[in-house]
Amino acid sequence: MFYYDGKLQYPVRVETPDPRFARLLQQAIGGVEGEIRVCLQYLFQAFGARGPVKYRQMLLSTGTEEIGHIEMLATAVALNLEGSPAAAREAAAAANPAVAAVMGGMDPRQFLSAGMAALASDANGVPFDGSHVYASGNLAADMYANATAEATGRTLACRLFELTDDPGMKDMLRFLIARDTMHQQQWLAVIEELGGHQGTLPIPNSFPQETELVEVSYDYFFHGIEGVPVPEGRFTQGASLDGRDEYRLRVSVPMGEEPLLAPPLPQAYAETQQMLDSSASGPTSEQ
Amino acid sequence: MFYYDGKLQYPVRVETPDPRFARLLQQAIGGVEGEIRVCLQYLFQAFGARGPVKYRQMLLSTGTEEIGHIEMLATAVALNLEGSPAAAREAAAAANPAVAAVMGGMDPRQFLSAGMAALASDANGVPFDGSHVYASGNLAADMYANATAEATGRTLACRLFELTDDPGMKDMLRFLIARDTMHQQQWLAVIEELGGHQGTLPIPNSFPQETELVEVSYDYFFHGIEGVPVPEGRFTQGASLDGRDEYRLRVSVPMGEEPLLAPPLPQAYAETQQMLDSSASGPTSEQ
Amino acid sequence: MFYYDGKLQYPVRVETPDPRFARLLQQAIGGVEGEIRVCLQYLFQAFGARGPVKYRQMLLSTGTEEIGHIEMLATAVALNLEGSPAAAREAAAAANPAVAAVMGGMDPRQFLSAGMAALASDANGVPFDGSHVYASGNLAADMYANATAEATGRTLACRLFELTDDPGMKDMLRFLIARDTMHQQQWLAVIEELGGHQGTLPIPNSFPQETELVEVSYDYFFHGIEGVPVPEGRFTQGASLDGRDEYRLRVSVPMGEEPLLAPPLPQAYAETQQMLDSSASGPTSEQ
Amino acid sequence: MFYYDGKLQYPVRVETPDPRFARLLQQAIGGVEGEIRVCLQYLFQAFGARGPVKYRQMLLSTGTEEIGHIEMLATAVALNLEGSPAAAREAAAAANPAVAAVMGGMDPRQFLSAGMAALASDANGVPFDGSHVYASGNLAADMYANATAEATGRTLACRLFELTDDPGMKDMLRFLIARDTMHQQQWLAVIEELGGHQGTLPIPNSFPQETELVEVSYDYFFHGIEGVPVPEGRFTQGASLDGRDEYRLRVSVPMGEEPLLAPPLPQAYAETQQMLDSSASGPTSEQ
Amino acid sequence: MFYYDGKLQYPVRVETPDPRFARLLQQAIGGVEGEIRVCLQYLFQAFGARGPVKYRQMLLSTGTEEIGHIEMLATAVALNLEGSPAAAREAAAAANPAVAAVMGGMDPRQFLSAGMAALASDANGVPFDGSHVYASGNLAADMYANATAEATGRTLACRLFELTDDPGMKDMLRFLIARDTMHQQQWLAVIEELGGHQGTLPIPNSFPQETELVEVSYDYFFHGIEGVPVPEGRFTQGASLDGRDEYRLRVSVPMGEEPLLAPPLPQAYAETQQMLDSSASGPTSEQ
Amino acid sequence: MFYYDGKLQYPVRVETPDPRFARLLQQAIGGVEGEIRVCLQYLFQAFGARGPVKYRQMLLSTGTEEIGHIEMLATAVALNLEGSPAAAREAAAAANPAVAAVMGGMDPRQFLSAGMAALASDANGVPFDGSHVYASGNLAADMYANATAEATGRTLACRLFELTDDPGMKDMLRFLIARDTMHQQQWLAVIEELGGHQGTLPIPNSFPQETELVEVSYDYFFHGIEGVPVPEGRFTQGASLDGRDEYRLRVSVPMGEEPLLAPPLPQAYAETQQMLDSSASGPTSEQ
Repeated sequence: MFYYDGKLQYPVRVETPDPRFARLLQQAIGGVEGEIRVCLQYLFQAFGARGPVKYRQMLLSTGTEEIGHIEMLATAVALNLEGSPAAAREAAAAANPAVAAVMGGMDPRQFLSAGMAALASDANGVPFDGSHVYASGNLAADMYANATAEATGRTLACRLFELTDDPGMKDMLRFLIARDTMHQQQWLAVIEELGGHQGTLPIPNSFPQETELVEVSYDYFFHGIEGVPVPEGRFTQGASLDGRDEYRLRVSVPMGEEPLLAPPLPQAYAETQQMLDSSASGPTSEQ
Repeated sequence: MFYYDGKLQYPVRVETPDPRFARLLQQAIGGVEGEIRVCLQYLFQAFGARGPVKYRQMLLSTGTEEIGHIEMLATAVALNLEGSPAAAREAAAAANPAVAAVMGGMDPRQFLSAGMAALASDANGVPFDGSHVYASGNLAADMYANATAEATGRTLACRLFELTDDPGMKDMLRFLIARDTMHQQQWLAVIEELGGHQGTLPIPNSFPQETELVEVSYDYFFHGIEGVPVPEGRFTQGASLDGRDEYRLRVSVPMGEEPLLAPPLPQAYAETQQMLDSSASGPTSEQ
Repeated sequence: MFYYDGKLQYPVRVETPDPRFARLLQQAIGGVEGEIRVCLQYLFQAFGARGPVKYRQMLLSTGTEEIGHIEMLATAVALNLEGSPAAAREAAAAANPAVAAVMGGMDPRQFLSAGMAALASDANGVPFDGSHVYASGNLAADMYANATAEATGRTLACRLFELTDDPGMKDMLRFLIARDTMHQQQWLAVIEELGGHQGTLPIPNSFPQETELVEVSYDYFFHGIEGVPVPEGRFTQGASLDGRDEYRLRVSVPMGEEPLLAPPLPQAYAETQQMLDSSASGPTSEQ
Repeated sequence: MFYYDGKLQYPVRVETPDPRFARLLQQAIGGVEGEIRVCLQYLFQAFGARGPVKYRQMLLSTGTEEIGHIEMLATAVALNLEGSPAAAREAAAAANPAVAAVMGGMDPRQFLSAGMAALASDANGVPFDGSHVYASGNLAADMYANATAEATGRTLACRLFELTDDPGMKDMLRFLIARDTMHQQQWLAVIEELGGHQGTLPIPNSFPQETELVEVSYDYFFHGIEGVPVPEGRFTQGASLDGRDEYRLRVSVPMGEEPLLAPPLPQAYAETQQMLDSSASGPTSEQ
Repeated sequence: MFYYDGKLQYPVRVETPDPRFARLLQQAIGGVEGEIRVCLQYLFQAFGARGPVKYRQMLLSTGTEEIGHIEMLATAVALNLEGSPAAAREAAAAANPAVAAVMGGMDPRQFLSAGMAALASDANGVPFDGSHVYASGNLAADMYANATAEATGRTLACRLFELTDDPGMKDMLRFLIARDTMHQQQWLAVIEELGGHQGTLPIPNSFPQETELVEVSYDYFFHGIEGVPVPEGRFTQGASLDGRDEYRLRVSVPMGEEPLLAPPLPQAYAETQQMLDSSASGPTSEQ
Repeated sequence: MFYYDGKLQYPVRVETPDPRFARLLQQAIGGVEGEIRVCLQYLFQAFGARGPVKYRQMLLSTGTEEIGHIEMLATAVALNLEGSPAAAREAAAAANPAVAAVMGGMDPRQFLSAGMAALASDANGVPFDGSHVYASGNLAADMYANATAEATGRTLACRLFELTDDPGMKDMLRFLIARDTMHQQQWLAVIEELGGHQGTLPIPNSFPQETELVEVSYDYFFHGIEGVPVPEGRFTQGASLDGRDEYRLRVSVPMGEEPLLAPPLPQAYAETQQMLDSSASGPTSEQ
């Protein structure tokens, strides 16, 4: 169960409202790198957590922190929109100044649909989409998903930092960037706690590895045609990260044949011409 | 530019077609853990790659391999569907045997929309969605995104392995599971090549860390109310993974105040009652 | 800012796990009538609230309650899935018992993507979609949106109640149905507080009504062709709900003409034939 | 069955085409508050109507009216786009004047995809989404859904009214705003006809209320932590709207315990470390 | 403007309600081949029609017919659902008969969300999506889009015909299949009227063809690697359909070089390692 | 299986980077007329091809070509974005020049999410959606779908050609427009190869036409009310395109009656008032 206190985790202030920046902030609310996503992701991982209970608790706590980040960012959007079209109307001399203000880079739905407030959408107005809530039931997979979310989230926050000169907004972003620093670390720390690469790879580590086709488990397959430069690096030679084999570089050649499907099922109503003998398919030559 | 040879990377055969399994395989084609996603993800990362060219090449090669995995899985779907309603029709005694066959666990659109073939959708028929194509422009963030995709992808393949008894399908999955083993490794190997945690964290490592609010950069914030167990672990004590600080456990308290928004903008047409003095908002008590 | 205690608002227990019911419960989690939607809807209304502060507080409190409902339902899903394919495997004699179990009515992604836990999706596996988070900035519109959400939500919960015989699940639903009873009331109580129909209609009540085309503001337009029964009721006669006029029944006739668009813009590359004189468009007759 | 006459329900004229306003109008066509939504919503409610036939007829008539509103708005979009890039090209001196025109606030897909016409999308270009078509089978729930749609729809139309100076557009909006006035009233009039709050609440009123957990059916649950202001109002005291009880204010405390899930199912391939005894989960302390 | 008469275009009757078939019918309502799509597609093409007015009229008429097809199919869904769980409850002996009925192949949301009626979704419950409403502003492109919609629509109806034994449903489908026959013809008849291939190709025919890179305008590019069979047919030799050139078969070779992007923009916060000299990218060899 | 060479099919160069044009190019990448769609569409048609193998080969080759078009366009986006905010920052004098640059018409997510590279989205930032991948299993339907995709794709490319003055971009588009010319032809050439209208219509031609309701198979139904102009043309008279009948013009009248649904199912929890005798539904009059 959950509780609120109505206060912000960190102060949110805007000295010079900028409706264009209000649009950009939407990415941090409803975007794929945004706070609704990480909030629901951590909470769903917690709600479905099986295994050591401390990870459930850890996820609940950080998921709960993220609700407050949505709150901060939604507040930041609202403050950046305050007085927008009105102020613009006074300032502008052109025809349709209000349109100019609304269209001058702000998300029109922040005005049209929300009356000058935040939406559950990204910077292009695309609604938040629950399929980004990764909660696989595999702890290591989830930790990498979380580290990714915080890596792209921190990158987003740094880019937003570049796009504002407002001291209040910069201050808020300094806080959020710092939190993303810690959140990256804490999810990767779980990987360390589980034994690092050797303790977790390949994910899932509970599948008996002898069952997979181990001949190709550590091969970097090269799909370039003849004459194309071959990428080489840590992934083409030396001991594998899990310590179980050596990497190999291998030019990929097909191990299978051309697939052969049965003629169309009559009930599926292909064209009649598709149901004829396929050997009658006309001339083909070989290159 | 790209080329094909029309052969399968690895043989795909089905001994006992099972239209229900054809539905499950859709998750590996068009699902968030599926092959369309990783294919486009690696290709888009390659197309936008800036920095050392070998990563562009590496991404191109593996992205090209993944097109062939879509081909293998789509072939597996088609083979599992061959003869489905017809076979079922003969076997069934109940009314509407064809409906029974179509609805007996298969994706109805594999018949209705595709005439017994694969769709660009997941196991619930939800179409593939391009927002899952992560290509952030930050190499470390992308490598973690890729490792995540392969971790959830391999987990998916292992779960599919449990859900079939068909020797052909098991063999194909043994191959795909092995490839996911390598793909996890190769993306994480790039992280190693970049210096591991100390070389990459916090992501992005090009943002000057002194700018962020370093007081909270290594603090695990606890959001439980009084009396709730506190999670402890590698993430609450000891040196941080990036080697720059120590983890701290901290009970979260609000640093900000209750947010205060301006009255509604008249042009946004709130209800008249919202525009009155907010101090006249009626009695509230304190708990 | 938000807090958790890790306990459930109301006990969730399942006597006989039923993976099919786990799928149905998804509608109450990620469906359009579900808890993610109302949770985010009330929180976003709170975060953007302008006007009397008590409504912000009221929304915050109920939005926070709803996070706990997501928690309860996600727990119910996980409990209904416990042991699913394993139990089925033992019980079943047919080929591919695991497929049978997964496909026997459960959401395959609860196994394939979540490892036997809840998803942020509806009963058909369609991901939660943030466009259902209504927060218009107009208090009366939002209260009707909220009452609607709770009306459809309670209807959903009653329907779910019909679909289970499990005493634990019935008990949980009795609680959720009761909460929806109150939530419907509380949002409509705000409408009463604002003066009911006369105090709030037409929404928004801040737009000067004399500006609209009042000749048609209280007319029920009938669009049936000749001979079709005319619906009559409270909406075709008597005083309007807002007390400002009388309802009238009116057969709808066009007040406008056939629209006439300009020829295609050359830069938009219509077919050449579209750019010719439209009067040369060939014979048309009048019926 | 349906018929057309090719004329507009109300005149649509544009004196000064404004491609930026054409983008904003999209919200009234394909947005969640828009006309495609209400059109399909009323028609689907009619097509599935059970119970008194007059509501089916009423819904059919207004649903049919709404098709004509889509027609009016799509015409308005087309007229606002007429000559757009061409006119801009002549006027502009900067490089790429056509790009400037297209990007100067208009929806680029109105040109790129539609050749200067309306799309079935909202003001951000997000396609219309059928999940907003609410038709619950419960008449009262549907009437509130309809009243909400018209309340947000009229708010949207009023906001659009602010964003244009064109006399033709203002005239069209005056008509649409007036129709929304009536449509709000007519759906709420059905609620009155059904007996108002006492006749309809709680929705659905056919579920035997003694079955729900009536102890919490009229309680406003307060989820603030200690020291937080408690919202009070019509919803915390006095007779309930349905006349069956009194409202109560109640501080929410968990009635359930911490949920306990079973260990991971082996077939779901969690990490091995998750399958160990969860009591061995390492130290946790109590705050 | 539009009108209704409340009657069905063709009789819809169901002798033996089958909730599983009700799910399949959803594809014909809200699927990509379904009636909502063609209805809106033809109406939007009409609303934005520029050029000869008869095409606007033709589109309006058929678009209006399609509204009635939605009505027929939605009625068919409702009739197939009548009494579903109740009937099943009586018949079933197993535990949770209602769940069995709901899950036995029907769309659970037809019960949960719609109370036994049709949804604006497809056979997998995926909501109708307005991006399938093609209205390009180019008459020939639109006519091919319409012919495609009717070709896939008729194929769908034929497949549905296979999936029911109900005489009423078969009769309704016989009507819809016949209408699709005509609709395919009428859109292709417009192509004939415009001069067929020579009068319309390449679409758009208003772009001056000498501007395009005519050297590759009639070449079939072969992308197979060496040794792969070359497809040959009407498209590799003989006069082109538009009569302007001859088809040629050509092995595709790159005309461009490896793309070279600038180093990352500092404000975009790539990893520091990406900003180094790309020539220092480590060893690559040539295959 | 697939291969790459890392070179571009045709040179992509940008003389004057224009971030606004980078946004417009997104439509050609991830839009419904774009290259991801045709690439996957042709490949999925190939992977599920049944019947003459040459069509599988033909589809594979062109699908493989299209991967290279995605590569070209993604490269074009990246090049148009090079140096964007930095250059703008130097040039601009206003406050927040970086915001101005990002918001001045470019897709903000190209910076925020991709670090100055292409997205798998359209010109409005809407992610690519796999439901546009048409692969029906019927060869003729698929060929028309492909011709449509190339017709709208070429129209899009021509419109983009209008929107740039950059010689490099114009050159690239000249190539893509030419390829679309051929691709339209090659899909329609398959129709010719199958016998044209008479060989393929009605699609599917394998459904026994005597089964459909042939009385209405060649009738153009007119849905206008009295007095409305009747569209006439090739589709209302003369021999049908398939040569099997004559077109007829017919005023549409309902052949069915008003639909009558059963009372609500009790378990679906309509309002009690809906379950009463529907004959008691109050007065209705006839117009």
